[in-house]
Amino acid sequence: MIFRQLFHAETSTYTYLLGSLATGEALLIDPVVEDVNKYLGLLEQLNLKLVRALDTHVHADHVTALGTLRERTGCETIMGLGPSTKAECATRHAEDGDDVGIPGIDLRALYTPGHTDDSYCYLMDDRVFTGDTLLIRGTGRTDFQNGDAHQQYNSLFEKLLTLPEDTLVYPGHDYKGFTMSTIGEEKRHNPRLQVHSVDEYVDIMEHLNLPSPKYMDVAVPANLTCGNLATAP
Amino acid sequence: MIFRQLFHAETSTYTYLLGSLATGEALLIDPVVEDVNKYLGLLEQLNLKLVRALDTHVHADHVTALGTLRERTGCETIMGLGPSTKAECATRHAEDGDDVGIPGIDLRALYTPGHTDDSYCYLMDDRVFTGDTLLIRGTGRTDFQNGDAHQQYNSLFEKLLTLPEDTLVYPGHDYKGFTMSTIGEEKRHNPRLQVHSVDEYVDIMEHLNLPSPKYMDVAVPANLTCGNLATAP
Repeated sequence: MIFRQLFHAETSTYTYLLGSLATGEALLIDPVVEDVNKYLGLLEQLNLKLVRALDTHVHADHVTALGTLRERTGCETIMGLGPSTKAECATRHAEDGDDVGIPGIDLRALYTPGHTDDSYCYLMDDRVFTGDTLLIRGTGRTDFQNGDAHQQYNSLFEKLLTLPEDTLVYPGHDYKGFTMSTIGEEKRHNPRLQVHSVDEYVDIMEHLNLPSPKYMDVAVPANLTCGNLATAP
Repeated sequence: MIFRQLFHAETSTYTYLLGSLATGEALLIDPVVEDVNKYLGLLEQLNLKLVRALDTHVHADHVTALGTLRERTGCETIMGLGPSTKAECATRHAEDGDDVGIPGIDLRALYTPGHTDDSYCYLMDDRVFTGDTLLIRGTGRTDFQNGDAHQQYNSLFEKLLTLPEDTLVYPGHDYKGFTMSTIGEEKRHNPRLQVHSVDEYVDIMEHLNLPSPKYMDVAVPANLTCGNLATAP
């Protein structure tokens, strides 16, 4: 398998490329629209054909490349289904437990609402792509897009932290120069996961007092149409 | 083994942490002085004791953490030996072929002059830490610190590109959001490695017309004393 972690510096976003050497097919997780040429150039050099692109949630901090990648490669686009959020533009919607991988690469959707109500993590063998649900020594804010700290607590403690401790954690962002972690490491050292009750967690999340993401007013409507700004509602 | 790639955004520098689960010992490659607390915090959380820190060369773009790490942890510091460059401050100097690893982690010094005359790469099993000798789709400039494009051509073509094609390449910097590559990929797609002669390579390197690194006047003298600015000559 070919595995690449790619970084979009302006928004500190990580994008993941998973490619199968056996089939020559690839998928991208959380691609950023400004980096489409970078992805397509790398895929071509690696002799990989992009067959699928998916987002962990409707992002508020950058515009997704899903629509542009579908236009330019014909790849399938996948977004997770939330109760009130639905990116109608996606080819397909994932639900909890769905296999969203490609031949040779198993990838299971884990519904982990909290950061947003359409937040999904994707589990592959020894690693999990945690989007903005679990960050390295942090968790995604829960104060917009139907975010819910109670739900996030459950997603973290009942789903992610029940994975084997040596599961590698690949987040959707990092702002401090870390590239990966493990479930065990986050369980022990993530300050937000040292709480003793859901109420304590909710209290932390309700008092973060963060400003709105810079690009939110552009990014959310754009991402509800897979980044095709021209057709945003 | 524990392996971590860490990023210093201001100078786009990659630092590598290699830790042995068997012994609880660790080493750092190309640590940056501003991130010392980050390294020590992570080492503590991972239950690792830093026993060795090394640089791929005397850097011109950031100040090394070698001196500070030695002061704070008692670790050994290693710099490669060049004909005219010698960071006297190092505990030990590496030469071509030396094993500079720690128990459980073999790391072999490859003398690869060209970017500077003290540039070394470090080879570990399936991966090579290439410093500024080989970058992802690039190579380090050769216009200061006794850099030499002829020598760099030989270091690249006679040493690095003779490694197995699937050897993972972990560079000292990346400015475009890539985190790793392979020897085969660079052989085929690195624009500077598509030349047909040493003269063609030298011609490319002599016409880059790059400005001096921003921090060079501070970084080089500081790094010759392992980053202990107070004692710089």
